[in-house]
Amino acid sequence: MAVYTHLAAEDLAALIAAYDVGDLVSAKGIAEGVSNSNWLIETTGKQGRGERFILTMYERRIELEDLPFFLDLLDHLAAHGCPVPRTIHDRSGASFRMLDGKAVALIEFLPGISVDHPTAAQAFSVGAALAQMHLASLHFGQSRPNTLDVAASLQTLKSCGEEPLAQIDPALPDYIGKAAELCDQWPSDLPRTVCHTDLFPDNILMLGDKVSALIDFYFACEDSMAYDLAVTHASWCFSKQGTSFDHAIGSAIIAGYESQRSLSDEERAALPVLAQGACLRFVASRAEDWISTPADALVTRKDPMDFARRLDFYRSEGVSAFAAGE
Amino acid sequence: MAVYTHLAAEDLAALIAAYDVGDLVSAKGIAEGVSNSNWLIETTGKQGRGERFILTMYERRIELEDLPFFLDLLDHLAAHGCPVPRTIHDRSGASFRMLDGKAVALIEFLPGISVDHPTAAQAFSVGAALAQMHLASLHFGQSRPNTLDVAASLQTLKSCGEEPLAQIDPALPDYIGKAAELCDQWPSDLPRTVCHTDLFPDNILMLGDKVSALIDFYFACEDSMAYDLAVTHASWCFSKQGTSFDHAIGSAIIAGYESQRSLSDEERAALPVLAQGACLRFVASRAEDWISTPADALVTRKDPMDFARRLDFYRSEGVSAFAAGE
Repeated sequence: MAVYTHLAAEDLAALIAAYDVGDLVSAKGIAEGVSNSNWLIETTGKQGRGERFILTMYERRIELEDLPFFLDLLDHLAAHGCPVPRTIHDRSGASFRMLDGKAVALIEFLPGISVDHPTAAQAFSVGAALAQMHLASLHFGQSRPNTLDVAASLQTLKSCGEEPLAQIDPALPDYIGKAAELCDQWPSDLPRTVCHTDLFPDNILMLGDKVSALIDFYFACEDSMAYDLAVTHASWCFSKQGTSFDHAIGSAIIAGYESQRSLSDEERAALPVLAQGACLRFVASRAEDWISTPADALVTRKDPMDFARRLDFYRSEGVSAFAAGE
Repeated sequence: MAVYTHLAAEDLAALIAAYDVGDLVSAKGIAEGVSNSNWLIETTGKQGRGERFILTMYERRIELEDLPFFLDLLDHLAAHGCPVPRTIHDRSGASFRMLDGKAVALIEFLPGISVDHPTAAQAFSVGAALAQMHLASLHFGQSRPNTLDVAASLQTLKSCGEEPLAQIDPALPDYIGKAAELCDQWPSDLPRTVCHTDLFPDNILMLGDKVSALIDFYFACEDSMAYDLAVTHASWCFSKQGTSFDHAIGSAIIAGYESQRSLSDEERAALPVLAQGACLRFVASRAEDWISTPADALVTRKDPMDFARRLDFYRSEGVSAFAAGE
């Protein structure tokens, strides 16, 4: 979370002038996003009423060729009534521009705050917003493969090597075998759509009990809808280190999801495997980041074991982790 | 520039509830301030019209006992018409509160952007705003000594040691002698008031040619008014590395200052020494930070030579650096 680039005020003002949003009034670099720089921008607005935007500069990890997919997706979802920020297009109609060799996009600012300890009512809203997004995505018409699926996660863990994995935690090399099992068990015939695949609490803004915004769609890709629900479940229902599970929050997410879209029996039966796969993804990416980040770097390394513990929970609990009620 | 502390949304909401500002709508950690964490906060406001604030958490460097001085100063200057953000007081009237053992204050949000390449018209506004602040500060009634004066800077350079200084730049140890000379030449009888002492472009927000806010008063202390003008001159009129001087910007700052408050002959004559002292302060603090920051840290170290070059410029140019016109 950082602002990686200094943008001179004069360059910012010139950039904003390419959009029909009035004059630049304020610009604050904000500490959000791990793969890009973001500024909270205020302008005089079109009708002289102040307007706010998020200006995002894509620094790394995001392939330029994927950017139209991500930005068009925001527009598609917003147009279909989902709480998703629209992309602001410049005077020529472009959804992004180049600045100093980097792509930048101006995104609608939506209010709301990310909760740390959701209530069941908030979790219900999260599930409902996710289902609403899935239904709207069915008509999107663009696709992008999931490059971080179980096969890729297995490959990532293998590439880390058993010895380096064991240095993070002695239990970690075992997850190579668990990942291989998950690849064999992975369901291939569940209903698919464009998914968020990273709907952590950080990526949802709320006002009271209601979801005001789903944000940060830069991992969006096609996958099974139930997998996206499993990612959300795994990232919302546990204590930070994955040592305790809150069944009430999990039930509320699923109930909220089903208030908009019913799960089939096949999807419901697949949830334990899908949730393990969701956890595996974060075990693998965190292990890879851990190994590539020096121990004395000022960046906080995220412990892959936080999600390894969740994986084991889903592995041992099976479908009962997703049963209704307390 | 960072957000050093994670504040849970629930704790933020509880904090905001202690103020008469409505409900929390949005909170973004912003990349401003080197010694504290800041969030740009939006609330529903008192009359249901959205209001914005800066929430500052004081992380280090700032002594808790100095905080009333800094916050009262903001209120005093704002009440006297200076473009300075007010402190928002809580329902009990307190200007700061404690949260997790750290002091936090809610500060008025003012619009504007920091310029990187000021025009002469902008520089004139900066000088005028500084003089306006000096005149208003005369009636403040509280004081705080300058702990970073020339004597302190000399001491800091000596403490760094000649060998470590030479490792930064072979020329740097010479500045111990130059600092000692400045201490001997330092004027003691110039008009004094509470000064900002750190009015770099970062700490001024502008809308067009006008100053909309002076911010970050956490180095404010009593010193000679002409010294504060010299700090501003030294931080606005040079290229980043201090290799080129823009006389037009310097003249405009002084003309702007004198549009509100005339300099005496003594003050004008003292400017070359005061400006060298201003540069010395940043040479010393940057050298100290450089030596205490590992070379491979992710923090960008600021080169003390950027201000050593400025110091030499003022030393060789004398009063002509401050002459009117081109």
